[in-house]
Amino acid sequence: MALQVFRSTLDMHKACEQLHMSRKRIGLVPTMGYLHAGHVSLFRYARAHADIAAATIFVNPAQFGPNEDFKRYPRDFEHDCSLAEEAGVDIVFAPADEEMYAPGYASYVEVEHVSKIFEGAFRPTHFRGVTTIVAKLFNIVRPQTAVFGQKDAQQVFLLKKMALDLNFNIEILVVPIVRETDGLAMSSRNVYLSNTERQQALVLSQALFQAQKRVQEGERRCGVILDEMKNIVLSGRPAQIDYIACVDPATFEILENALKPQILFLLAVRFGPTRLIDNILISL
Amino acid sequence: MALQVFRSTLDMHKACEQLHMSRKRIGLVPTMGYLHAGHVSLFRYARAHADIAAATIFVNPAQFGPNEDFKRYPRDFEHDCSLAEEAGVDIVFAPADEEMYAPGYASYVEVEHVSKIFEGAFRPTHFRGVTTIVAKLFNIVRPQTAVFGQKDAQQVFLLKKMALDLNFNIEILVVPIVRETDGLAMSSRNVYLSNTERQQALVLSQALFQAQKRVQEGERRCGVILDEMKNIVLSGRPAQIDYIACVDPATFEILENALKPQILFLLAVRFGPTRLIDNILISL
Repeated sequence: MALQVFRSTLDMHKACEQLHMSRKRIGLVPTMGYLHAGHVSLFRYARAHADIAAATIFVNPAQFGPNEDFKRYPRDFEHDCSLAEEAGVDIVFAPADEEMYAPGYASYVEVEHVSKIFEGAFRPTHFRGVTTIVAKLFNIVRPQTAVFGQKDAQQVFLLKKMALDLNFNIEILVVPIVRETDGLAMSSRNVYLSNTERQQALVLSQALFQAQKRVQEGERRCGVILDEMKNIVLSGRPAQIDYIACVDPATFEILENALKPQILFLLAVRFGPTRLIDNILISL
Repeated sequence: MALQVFRSTLDMHKACEQLHMSRKRIGLVPTMGYLHAGHVSLFRYARAHADIAAATIFVNPAQFGPNEDFKRYPRDFEHDCSLAEEAGVDIVFAPADEEMYAPGYASYVEVEHVSKIFEGAFRPTHFRGVTTIVAKLFNIVRPQTAVFGQKDAQQVFLLKKMALDLNFNIEILVVPIVRETDGLAMSSRNVYLSNTERQQALVLSQALFQAQKRVQEGERRCGVILDEMKNIVLSGRPAQIDYIACVDPATFEILENALKPQILFLLAVRFGPTRLIDNILISL
């Protein structure tokens, strides 16, 4: 099946309804485009867990703050379609902004509490934008499964919570972070980094791998590990550390001791004007 | 088909999925129970516009404020089921509170702006509770149509807006207000009224009918009509007038002149401790 591209909500919805009527299971991968190997792994995962893999490519204005990078966020639709098709995507939905947010648009989905900490503390309306667009895409596509990357760990938590709370009957699948060979987590925003910043940014994965090593060695005091991580990050001369934290991935509560079945170290750090996030999930 | 009653979300969802698979169209009527002739007209409407009429009976805690009447809101489940079955309802969904809002519940749907005026000004979290529970019920049932009463005119506006904005592909049908023979709009809350208050409350429909008469006579100045309405309402010695207003039902913008295709007069008035709402929709 050749890649089908839909621009209108109605056409996308009709195509998905047709698939439902013929009992095809749809796996949805919402993306903002400028696709990289991380997205490809999501597509392959969707392909493996459903009959039809549907990707959306939409730089969602509602999840950017007024002073953020919405306008300069990188876009390359032709290349995205090639990559998606190669990775087994059957359908791409790429609506215009006005198609998703018509004049007078007013309805938002919000998950309280966890949407306001970490990323939410630095980007106050970010997660409201994320949960809103994903709810809209869920309604348009009605997929059986939706696939997201562990890279956005807090987003994953909030989308699972939203799906559960609002009774979307959709299985949320999460795919591990894909990294460059030197450890940098794949991100469409890596293109913003200068050569120097690109090198400095390696301290993020180094700090996370060190946390993993220390937990595996038996260290359970999160404070001790976080101090070590901070020193590693600082050695990369970042412009700013927004947060380095250790939480229970099941609740996003801050942990003082690494005594849960899973623990999540997460951080957000700026190099020059570019803000990067990364995390590592450790099973005990 | 005898009335089926479901208490669990999962059972209700499965039953609805079965109906979808056999291509049955579901008409959903969300209610808070303590059913009256107004609800019956919604059920008959759903029955006529779908293959299966599904009613939900759930006194939704999220749409009551902390000092409102959630606990004493009238309930009579046995009688509700009889009335529903008689009116052609096939399925009743009556979940427990914890089934809809599990501990740690955190996700809400909100429609901005219009949710904050009129009813929203007096009941700050009311409409957030309404749009949230209806979004949940939409996801559990996935009806083709949903039927609501014109009595809650602002709720109807917000639910239509939510369905449009969030891409629920559900047709929202609105059924006219059903009144007692003396004009009082049917409401589960009428049971709160003393005999005296019940008589006093007749000024609400009288004021609305007067507004209709004046528009039909050619009066186009909303201010003039609202003054007359206020005098009629005051003659019933209400405890408080929360608002008497004239809006464009397509936008809920306040009108100074009755020059739109449709105009809506709406009011909220207290008699003793009981707060009543009513409205009249006039087509020009």
